[in-house]
Amino acid sequence: MKDNKLQIFDSTLRDGAQGANISFSVEDKLKVIDALDKLGVDFIEAGNPFSNPAEMQFFREAAGLKLAHAKLVAFGSTRRKGIAPEEDSNLRSLLAANTEYVAIFGKSHIRHATDVLKAAPEENLAMIEESVRFLASNGKKVVFDAEHFFDGYKADAEYAMNALAAAHRAGAWCLCLCDTNGGVFPDEAYAVTKAVTERFPDAVVAIHCHNDGGLAVAATIEAVKAGARQIQGTLLGFGERCGNTDLVTAVCNLQLKRGYECIPPEKLQDIYGTAMAVAETANVAIPANRPYIGMNAFAHKAGMHADGVLKYSSSFEHIDPALIGNKRKFLLSEISGKSAIYDKLKNYFPDLDKNGKEMGAIVAALKERALSGYQYEAAEASFILIVEKLLGKYKSSFDLINYKVINEQPAIEGKVASAIIKVRVNGVTKIAASDGEGPVHAMDLALRAALSDFYPEIAGVTLTDFKVRVLDSDKATAAKVRVLITSADSADSWTTVGVSEDIIEASWLALTDSIDYALLRRSR
Amino acid sequence: MKDNKLQIFDSTLRDGAQGANISFSVEDKLKVIDALDKLGVDFIEAGNPFSNPAEMQFFREAAGLKLAHAKLVAFGSTRRKGIAPEEDSNLRSLLAANTEYVAIFGKSHIRHATDVLKAAPEENLAMIEESVRFLASNGKKVVFDAEHFFDGYKADAEYAMNALAAAHRAGAWCLCLCDTNGGVFPDEAYAVTKAVTERFPDAVVAIHCHNDGGLAVAATIEAVKAGARQIQGTLLGFGERCGNTDLVTAVCNLQLKRGYECIPPEKLQDIYGTAMAVAETANVAIPANRPYIGMNAFAHKAGMHADGVLKYSSSFEHIDPALIGNKRKFLLSEISGKSAIYDKLKNYFPDLDKNGKEMGAIVAALKERALSGYQYEAAEASFILIVEKLLGKYKSSFDLINYKVINEQPAIEGKVASAIIKVRVNGVTKIAASDGEGPVHAMDLALRAALSDFYPEIAGVTLTDFKVRVLDSDKATAAKVRVLITSADSADSWTTVGVSEDIIEASWLALTDSIDYALLRRSR
Repeated sequence: MKDNKLQIFDSTLRDGAQGANISFSVEDKLKVIDALDKLGVDFIEAGNPFSNPAEMQFFREAAGLKLAHAKLVAFGSTRRKGIAPEEDSNLRSLLAANTEYVAIFGKSHIRHATDVLKAAPEENLAMIEESVRFLASNGKKVVFDAEHFFDGYKADAEYAMNALAAAHRAGAWCLCLCDTNGGVFPDEAYAVTKAVTERFPDAVVAIHCHNDGGLAVAATIEAVKAGARQIQGTLLGFGERCGNTDLVTAVCNLQLKRGYECIPPEKLQDIYGTAMAVAETANVAIPANRPYIGMNAFAHKAGMHADGVLKYSSSFEHIDPALIGNKRKFLLSEISGKSAIYDKLKNYFPDLDKNGKEMGAIVAALKERALSGYQYEAAEASFILIVEKLLGKYKSSFDLINYKVINEQPAIEGKVASAIIKVRVNGVTKIAASDGEGPVHAMDLALRAALSDFYPEIAGVTLTDFKVRVLDSDKATAAKVRVLITSADSADSWTTVGVSEDIIEASWLALTDSIDYALLRRSR
Repeated sequence: MKDNKLQIFDSTLRDGAQGANISFSVEDKLKVIDALDKLGVDFIEAGNPFSNPAEMQFFREAAGLKLAHAKLVAFGSTRRKGIAPEEDSNLRSLLAANTEYVAIFGKSHIRHATDVLKAAPEENLAMIEESVRFLASNGKKVVFDAEHFFDGYKADAEYAMNALAAAHRAGAWCLCLCDTNGGVFPDEAYAVTKAVTERFPDAVVAIHCHNDGGLAVAATIEAVKAGARQIQGTLLGFGERCGNTDLVTAVCNLQLKRGYECIPPEKLQDIYGTAMAVAETANVAIPANRPYIGMNAFAHKAGMHADGVLKYSSSFEHIDPALIGNKRKFLLSEISGKSAIYDKLKNYFPDLDKNGKEMGAIVAALKERALSGYQYEAAEASFILIVEKLLGKYKSSFDLINYKVINEQPAIEGKVASAIIKVRVNGVTKIAASDGEGPVHAMDLALRAALSDFYPEIAGVTLTDFKVRVLDSDKATAAKVRVLITSADSADSWTTVGVSEDIIEASWLALTDSIDYALLRRSR
């Protein structure tokens, strides 16, 4: 192993699946394994074969996978009290899972051994040693997960070390220090890991943190400095409570800034795309402010900042976003300068002159619209449409003749809202109606019905997100609202915005922009 | 100042407002200031009075606020190149803002001075020194924000120190080390801060981090270890890109685990509620996995973990959640809450038996409603009405026969919405109609018109705030929405909530609760 190599151990499918609202089908699991393997992750902990028959079945099928790089790991625990290892059904299921690597957890905190497990201190050590020896003598490479290691070390350092020693002399390949309740501080992680790497210089020492103190990545980095050579976590930080170590952030920090090789260097630029794919599979949105891979991680708002970035990129960017496959973004807010706006537009409108009259008109129009509550930072599709209109390039895909949206109680056949929409396309008039769960739902369905004869392709467009923000909420029900709608088809996703004192009109504006943008893209 | 006291400097209203989708009205700002002050935060950076007239106007009004503890801080920059401080309109606006404390940023990275600012190294130092001296000699306590300090220190440590020295000899009260691009590692933060605290033993040294590497809280903790005595950040981590140091996490870590006093000890249990209130004002949801205050931060899936927690709470909890006002939760069999609910109710219903059948029914009903998206933390009036209903004490002030709300384009005489509402009060039927700026506005006016003959006192009730939150936004336009309405009369103000897939129905529910509560209060 190279001196600067760190092993990456991903537990998205095991510890990650403990997170609230996270669950993976067999197909999902295979997708995640494939994505992690392609990224160059070393170990993939794929589940606990003892926990239920489906998990065991999964391992049986996964044994046939051709992975380019990663090794699958089956997870379980040390044997139960008072039973021989070969009779412990959990350990036997680990053999049956048919992986080269297995991970088992055991207690390293004396009070957890005595109070939770109700085992004598020596008995707990014997459970660890015999379990590891059983697995190792059956040809497995064993990761020993020392549960509560950092708290255990504080409570009784010698006992915690004895737990590791029991696993080590039984042939454990890797000693994993777990901060099970997520409370360890980075400096404590350093000191304790240092003591372990000095005591066991020939073992692979792993660090496994939880993020209850918001410090999991930092503690991981400090443990690596102290000699840990394997980092455990979940690609996107999934996990119980506050989650596990977020591997994307840990890997980017360690590889870009500390010179470690976590994944092959040429794969680093794929990490953004891999994160998006895994998030999609888990059906979880990546928070916009997530380090490195968030939509806003390299987004610049204030005029002054955007200017600074253009002059000297490290001003407000700690790394070049291209290194990990992300992109710089300029948010279009009321304080964006001309440079930022031009920078955004030049890809769409290559002929635009930065210092021309048209550019001046665009900046002025955006400022005016910002004053009336429009915010284009999250609604690039509406922004492009506005510019199309200003440049005289916009061709409307339909004219609205009128709409009428009715909400009523009592509801009619369970539907509280209905909408009638009349449009004209190329001189042809069409009226359509729909009911729905609410007014915007009814309106969306009626608009699609009215346009479907003219534009059959809009059947492939679906609304995926709907957000409402009251702008000047102290005006109460006569306040302005801003509606953001995100739409997607098989190839792309885009966001549009509408602002009005009337929430129905605001939704209508965002909705029509969404359809307009879908049709505009096609016409290019 | 006590040895273990750390000053807390919150920039939610300034740096936090730079975050995408974060904006505060004047009323919002006053709510945030009030919440932070009550929590015992030391400094509140409330905006940049030079940036626009509204910000200046805000400071003029805020000067009249009676704060129990916190000091307001106005933010600006050092003087421009080639101009005397007294002629610099930015510095003059800082004087006019009329706060005891001001913060100004300046360059401490030599290349940013020369390449971004296009100022000679000595000229930049003069800009810092003269600006600080001008403000200090006008009676201000000056925080000097050394922009890009950590990168600047790496590039040219002497120059970075000279920038601080210029501010220090000019009388700056506090030297703030800013990690402007968010890339600093905790160990670097320690080493550099140590060098600064040793060089300026009599200055208050502050640490101001951004979270681009996911390390802002950890770097803040290490800087404190190196002698920093003020921590800057934003309560919920709002801020550009990946946000600023999340003060809730930093404060909880430092106060609960390192023995510092960040806020008065008796206020710590209010931090959860304060965070919820600020999030509600900003109309931002706190991620469920957020350390300390997330909904799942102390949530345990039933089974082995929940068992461990019951036997030995530190198994899977790094702190007792009650210390900060959060609660332990069991995801499958929630058993928390009764005491807190009883505590809240006993003022309204002094006869209620904490261990009686009625209390059990209340807890069960609230849980059921929570599952369908109701949240009563910010809507106490609706909460009281629910309990009235469960106790059989509720007497409806009117029955709805039906309503019909119509939105249409083109608008009729400028009004896009109209509503017809038919009610029955004491056997008498009344139908009324109104148009409005939007459907809820029309509905509010129609309901008042229908009820005014029966309850003339509702003329004195006005709606003062209206908020909408989309709950499961990935369901797009068929998603559930939660509407919060705040109403007031001359004596009081109260908030009500409604949840539905139909935004009109959700608004109607909140609206009727609001009127019901107004009439209920009167009848007491």
